Amino acid sequence: MTINIGVIGTGAIGREHIRRCSQVLQNSRVVALNDINRSNCEQVINELGLDAQIYDNAHDLINDTAVQAILVTSWGPTHEEFVLACIKAGKPVFCEKPLAVTAQGCLNIVEAEINAGKKLVQVGFMRPYDSGYRALKEVITRGDIGEPLMLHCAHRNPSVGDAYTTDMAITDTLIHELDVLRWLLNDDYVSAQVIFPRKTRNASSHLRDPQIVLLETTRGTRIDVEIFVNCDYGYDIQCEVVGELGIARLPEPVSVQTRSAAKLSTAILTDWKKRFIDAYDVELQDFIDNVASGEMTGPSAWDGYAAAVAADACVAAQNSGEILPVKMPPKPAFYA
Amino acid sequence: MTINIGVIGTGAIGREHIRRCSQVLQNSRVVALNDINRSNCEQVINELGLDAQIYDNAHDLINDTAVQAILVTSWGPTHEEFVLACIKAGKPVFCEKPLAVTAQGCLNIVEAEINAGKKLVQVGFMRPYDSGYRALKEVITRGDIGEPLMLHCAHRNPSVGDAYTTDMAITDTLIHELDVLRWLLNDDYVSAQVIFPRKTRNASSHLRDPQIVLLETTRGTRIDVEIFVNCDYGYDIQCEVVGELGIARLPEPVSVQTRSAAKLSTAILTDWKKRFIDAYDVELQDFIDNVASGEMTGPSAWDGYAAAVAADACVAAQNSGEILPVKMPPKPAFYA
Amino acid sequence: MTINIGVIGTGAIGREHIRRCSQVLQNSRVVALNDINRSNCEQVINELGLDAQIYDNAHDLINDTAVQAILVTSWGPTHEEFVLACIKAGKPVFCEKPLAVTAQGCLNIVEAEINAGKKLVQVGFMRPYDSGYRALKEVITRGDIGEPLMLHCAHRNPSVGDAYTTDMAITDTLIHELDVLRWLLNDDYVSAQVIFPRKTRNASSHLRDPQIVLLETTRGTRIDVEIFVNCDYGYDIQCEVVGELGIARLPEPVSVQTRSAAKLSTAILTDWKKRFIDAYDVELQDFIDNVASGEMTGPSAWDGYAAAVAADACVAAQNSGEILPVKMPPKPAFYA
Amino acid sequence: MTINIGVIGTGAIGREHIRRCSQVLQNSRVVALNDINRSNCEQVINELGLDAQIYDNAHDLINDTAVQAILVTSWGPTHEEFVLACIKAGKPVFCEKPLAVTAQGCLNIVEAEINAGKKLVQVGFMRPYDSGYRALKEVITRGDIGEPLMLHCAHRNPSVGDAYTTDMAITDTLIHELDVLRWLLNDDYVSAQVIFPRKTRNASSHLRDPQIVLLETTRGTRIDVEIFVNCDYGYDIQCEVVGELGIARLPEPVSVQTRSAAKLSTAILTDWKKRFIDAYDVELQDFIDNVASGEMTGPSAWDGYAAAVAADACVAAQNSGEILPVKMPPKPAFYA
Repeated sequence: MTINIGVIGTGAIGREHIRRCSQVLQNSRVVALNDINRSNCEQVINELGLDAQIYDNAHDLINDTAVQAILVTSWGPTHEEFVLACIKAGKPVFCEKPLAVTAQGCLNIVEAEINAGKKLVQVGFMRPYDSGYRALKEVITRGDIGEPLMLHCAHRNPSVGDAYTTDMAITDTLIHELDVLRWLLNDDYVSAQVIFPRKTRNASSHLRDPQIVLLETTRGTRIDVEIFVNCDYGYDIQCEVVGELGIARLPEPVSVQTRSAAKLSTAILTDWKKRFIDAYDVELQDFIDNVASGEMTGPSAWDGYAAAVAADACVAAQNSGEILPVKMPPKPAFYA
Repeated sequence: MTINIGVIGTGAIGREHIRRCSQVLQNSRVVALNDINRSNCEQVINELGLDAQIYDNAHDLINDTAVQAILVTSWGPTHEEFVLACIKAGKPVFCEKPLAVTAQGCLNIVEAEINAGKKLVQVGFMRPYDSGYRALKEVITRGDIGEPLMLHCAHRNPSVGDAYTTDMAITDTLIHELDVLRWLLNDDYVSAQVIFPRKTRNASSHLRDPQIVLLETTRGTRIDVEIFVNCDYGYDIQCEVVGELGIARLPEPVSVQTRSAAKLSTAILTDWKKRFIDAYDVELQDFIDNVASGEMTGPSAWDGYAAAVAADACVAAQNSGEILPVKMPPKPAFYA
Repeated sequence: MTINIGVIGTGAIGREHIRRCSQVLQNSRVVALNDINRSNCEQVINELGLDAQIYDNAHDLINDTAVQAILVTSWGPTHEEFVLACIKAGKPVFCEKPLAVTAQGCLNIVEAEINAGKKLVQVGFMRPYDSGYRALKEVITRGDIGEPLMLHCAHRNPSVGDAYTTDMAITDTLIHELDVLRWLLNDDYVSAQVIFPRKTRNASSHLRDPQIVLLETTRGTRIDVEIFVNCDYGYDIQCEVVGELGIARLPEPVSVQTRSAAKLSTAILTDWKKRFIDAYDVELQDFIDNVASGEMTGPSAWDGYAAAVAADACVAAQNSGEILPVKMPPKPAFYA
Repeated sequence: MTINIGVIGTGAIGREHIRRCSQVLQNSRVVALNDINRSNCEQVINELGLDAQIYDNAHDLINDTAVQAILVTSWGPTHEEFVLACIKAGKPVFCEKPLAVTAQGCLNIVEAEINAGKKLVQVGFMRPYDSGYRALKEVITRGDIGEPLMLHCAHRNPSVGDAYTTDMAITDTLIHELDVLRWLLNDDYVSAQVIFPRKTRNASSHLRDPQIVLLETTRGTRIDVEIFVNCDYGYDIQCEVVGELGIARLPEPVSVQTRSAAKLSTAILTDWKKRFIDAYDVELQDFIDNVASGEMTGPSAWDGYAAAVAADACVAAQNSGEILPVKMPPKPAFYA
């Protein structure tokens, strides 16, 4: 059974997802496109040789009966509106990060979905689909290291542009850890603190870089995440879980080991796009399979909301310097 | 463009490839099956929910105009006949190892293909499709380690059954290195020697295990391959290329690193089927893409022949204990 | 030139140092012993075949003109008295941790030494003598990773006895990091915070284990140290320095890598005594060499005082849960 | 008890050993020196502040009753004469490699020692004193990997001068493996073969580099040693022991791991002198301790002879290209 997909937003990420749905994944076909700039749609259709209809209005695309599922990859501030429309139309929707630009917007989606009585939303958090994180979770779940007590994490980029601001370290960068660590631990955050170490000279004048975020979960597990977006040396994601009986570590990406010029070395990626490239395929295939089976199992609207609430607390903690609570309502039975 | 595929032989490997072609890969559809046991075909059709026709005769399947490409995954001794029939029918054929059970059989296929005037055959050597070997080849090709001078390799299995004989260390096990190392070095073998170290007590009485095969290439590169099929500890493939300026090493499979019980460790695979599991997908997708494009670029009939000639020399060297020549005719321009 | 050494306190550490001075190191000879239990001295003399005099009173040992340098390895609360007596006698003294049981006690020693006008004290911090830490400092000093911005450290023991209390995580365990990290960074602490993660079930009821200590230095470098004294898996010291251009990591102890039973592994120590065993030799040889040359260059009384002040702040931070200042007076020119 | 040592030959190695005996080791004192150039002795005495007598004739030094043990570090061709003189004088002698320049010369020493009725000779093979090889031997002896079946070794130098000839790959380079692998396996060689891979462009015109030496032991264990003395990238000693149950590997030298410039790397040594620097201290201390205890336990004259016999076979195998026997008489009970 092939799923007919409509895509709203044909920018960089949208185009990548369209390519996946048409050339890589099973059982998917892109049949409808919308973009604020119609010519972008035409270009994508030409480039990828699609047989797809262009809609000038995203809502028309959503409501077209030929469209069975929607990918929302438009500008962030439009996500809430389009996702709500998909829910209203009763159609499964895959929405790229952020689900909404505010926690309240995410909550609106959660409530709409609950009212609709059916899970329809998958948020574009790809790390739970990464084979490394999955292997790490398996080790934890199998009990190899006992109960997790502490996580030491790092999210490092070689450099960022001048437009990158201090709060984006939370909303654009840490947001991935905020999602994947909840999933990894099957736990929720209760407090957040942000520490600003000595600043690297390589950061722009307005940016505080690096930062260390300290999180506490309901079970008391403590997480530290170093965010260092001008670390110079590479794109590097680290996650070490310290349990009661041992430690497990997220695998490094595969690389040829060489001995040359007095060094034993392996390469570190510099391009973030390559780090989780396989996870994007798995993530979208899962969405398509879930549309086919009628049951959404990926990162939910509630997960999107939880990440937004935690991110808000972290941004507040950046500003106050204090240890702040992360206030989450109890998880509705709907998402259990 | 979806390719209609016919499969001859629905045993373990055949079934896996049928699953790939129907559930994993792009642009392929299994439309025809043949097996010496018709009920095997029925079972596969039921299990995988295929819409495929069963042929009692493999040649009828090959000649059915609805079938655009053939996978030969039947019993080894039948390969030559079916591949020749595919060539005669002018249809692309993917043939699992061995291409033929004798070097002469492989040569018959090579000659038939040359006479047909078109490359139609891909042999099921999957290692050149493995991301690790590809990364290793990239390092070599980029010149990072200079010209390759020596290769130190190992092919280890935890254990083998009693039916495994000394010559199978060459024909079933080393055969993969014989193929992939030619590809890695873009070179051919000129001599072979086999050494029998002290035997492990874990091998059956009739089996000489481990063995070390020494190969020499036309450029003088020297290769040693340890074959140890009762190594006890795991399935482990090693390949280290020593060049004029440095050394590059085939990556180990990804694994979570743990610290527990006084050990810092990563897991070693024990099941060979998992080691190159992704490569099988890439290999078959490449075949399908090549069928669609009309140009075969994977391991060729010539590659199958070259591996067979080298294997014959190695088996002879097992018996003689001497350094024996590997006599290959010059590569026909057809395969350049 | 052989240095005649007197040793006060012949318990476990004292005995080890006596063995070093008599059997391992150059230019040292143990000529005088004191212990609250005279028979302990006799036993050590017999065991090691020493030609040494026993003193019933430590002050008599200190003042004996035959004794050129003193090792204080007695019970902690006696250290201050004996070190002050050595200073008064104008004799070089090596004092095991702690220099004194209070920061004020350390300060008394500092002041006495300054008044004496000559550096005479070396505190028994051995990590700056460890080849691993020295190699790490060399990498930092050479500028390979730019200015240090963050340190991620861990101090893990497999288990501790029931007598180990929550504050001992600072005064007995972290004290080593408090010393060596000042030395590594050539910097001082300005604030401390302690976080208590979820407690391991393997800790005794009264002990909070693990703990995370957060330190800030005058240059703004941020340090996190995980202290986990019932980590179960081994004795493990980690130190990762994140600089502006890269990261450098304290080497793991040497170990044979094995492949067996489906694991690629190296051993982790379980006995802390083996971790820095070579550093003790280097440390004491340095003391002896310094006695001979007349210039003390090892960890000074000021270093002992600084560690004590930082430890006091960390213990207070354990109790308050707050970020507390570490108040150090400026370093006297005497110690520059 | 301090041993009075006389040293014959004050070149580079001699000077290093004199420094060790006077400044690093316990219970040793250099009291006598001889060199074909008397001024060399004077220079060493001045540099190291020795209180030592100079002898114009090595035999006078050997026979001086004040000299309790002798180090022979003169020109290789003189070793046999001086070692025989030491045996005649009944004095323990440490002789640098080679024990003699021919196997027959070594055998002369063996016979003299047996006739003298007392082990007096230690040959300067330092690798059995290296902590890495010792740890490796411990793993083997403990049975962790079962019985050794194969050894894969490498001995690589970044480059050698023009004076280095093809046979020196055996006599100067492989000689260390020939000794240490016998010790590691507690076994003897029975055959040797040498293979010449494609030559590196970095070797001088007359030098065949790299080489691969294949050895067989009495128990059937097979050893391959890659000798590559212009490998460009560093000084690198590898030794991997493949046993019936697993594999153990000689540890790499300790190094700080760094992440910088898109590489995760550790340093490889380039200077061979640093690789086994600690082993020299342990080796000579062992000699001195053995002189004191009256029982020689280090590498014996028989070990020196065995290495010489194996080296002769390897040089012959370089020339013949054939698999040649290594003909060793049975080990005399004297050396059991």
